[in-house]
Amino acid sequence: MFNSSRRTSRPFTVLVEGNIGSGKTTFLNYFDRHQNVSVLAEPIELWRNCDGHNLLGLMYEDSQKWSFTFQSYVQLTMLQHHCHRSSHPIKLMERSVYSAKYCFVEKMRRDNILSEASAAVIDEHFQWLINNPNTAADLIVYLRTSPEIAYERIIERSRVEEKFISIDYLRELHNIHEEWLFYKNLHYCPAPVIVLNADLDKSSIEEEYQKCHYHIFNDIPISVQG
Amino acid sequence: MFNSSRRTSRPFTVLVEGNIGSGKTTFLNYFDRHQNVSVLAEPIELWRNCDGHNLLGLMYEDSQKWSFTFQSYVQLTMLQHHCHRSSHPIKLMERSVYSAKYCFVEKMRRDNILSEASAAVIDEHFQWLINNPNTAADLIVYLRTSPEIAYERIIERSRVEEKFISIDYLRELHNIHEEWLFYKNLHYCPAPVIVLNADLDKSSIEEEYQKCHYHIFNDIPISVQG
Repeated sequence: MFNSSRRTSRPFTVLVEGNIGSGKTTFLNYFDRHQNVSVLAEPIELWRNCDGHNLLGLMYEDSQKWSFTFQSYVQLTMLQHHCHRSSHPIKLMERSVYSAKYCFVEKMRRDNILSEASAAVIDEHFQWLINNPNTAADLIVYLRTSPEIAYERIIERSRVEEKFISIDYLRELHNIHEEWLFYKNLHYCPAPVIVLNADLDKSSIEEEYQKCHYHIFNDIPISVQG
Repeated sequence: MFNSSRRTSRPFTVLVEGNIGSGKTTFLNYFDRHQNVSVLAEPIELWRNCDGHNLLGLMYEDSQKWSFTFQSYVQLTMLQHHCHRSSHPIKLMERSVYSAKYCFVEKMRRDNILSEASAAVIDEHFQWLINNPNTAADLIVYLRTSPEIAYERIIERSRVEEKFISIDYLRELHNIHEEWLFYKNLHYCPAPVIVLNADLDKSSIEEEYQKCHYHIFNDIPISVQG
């Protein structure tokens, strides 16, 4: 069922999801040029500087100790993006409270990085958040990549915190994304999903983007893929 | 300035604050008999059983490890009480997001139980929460006790988790309440404060309660004490 916000005051909200290195920033930059669109990139700068504390760095350095503190802040900052209003009728968000919970907390849980008690608290917060009408979404764009290509891109861009990321980590995170957004046998999908081939390089990716252009700008019911 | 909710849809909200052992339950039970009043006791049962985890017990047993997880859940459950609606026009809440932050997180911070990074995340959540109109309050009743009397009551009622509480802990927590609600030189008071002598025993306390009866039921501006 197509959940349209165009009859409400909430902007038409598109969640851009995908593994680390799947090309979310490139996608967002492409659509940021269009009028009527506001783009909210993942608030990494806040995660790097929460009142002077680099929570992202701490989390990669000692995930056992910092994963809950980090995820608690991620949850808050993602909620703030969901609640964000601008004058533009269309909002593109890089990730969401959903991927924070369904992909990253899920991964920490599988790796026993997050205690069961702390995971329960994150769950309770999450259940509360998704009852907030602002966390509703209208469309998910899943940038589907092979973990190997994502890994090459991560090596190439060499962001400081990403030096700890292994190919195995990317493969597992890929599998979780696949279960959630492609096979849809894990968790709830808060909106219809468009799957794009995000293995394509910059020279050919814009043609692939056209597949979701219409759904973002014309709000027509789509056949849910996957 | 008297912040009245009687012209809005929010119930007239009274926060009942005080040290451990200050007689909050007795106070709430007394007013629970009145029609038009809904009473929300501190959600201790949730803290004892968050999806099977006794966060309150964990926190007293190993506060260094569990204080942030516990306080994160306290913040959520207190927000839920602030948002709670019933058909009654008056709501009495045992404690609040304010005392959670200004008294208990403050104490953990002073004791170096909470890391600075985790305290920063709690701060960010708190700043976000108090922008929610549901966390507004109309009146604070401060049940003011001497720590020694509070300690006697705690020994007498012998709640399992409270066996770790020392008289020194109570004294420090008392001082923080005093700074916040009596001397008002620490933090912000979200509503006018009535101070009651909560050292009185059960035989004479009901007369003391009369001092706030009028303000709860008649919504007349009061002279802020302290």
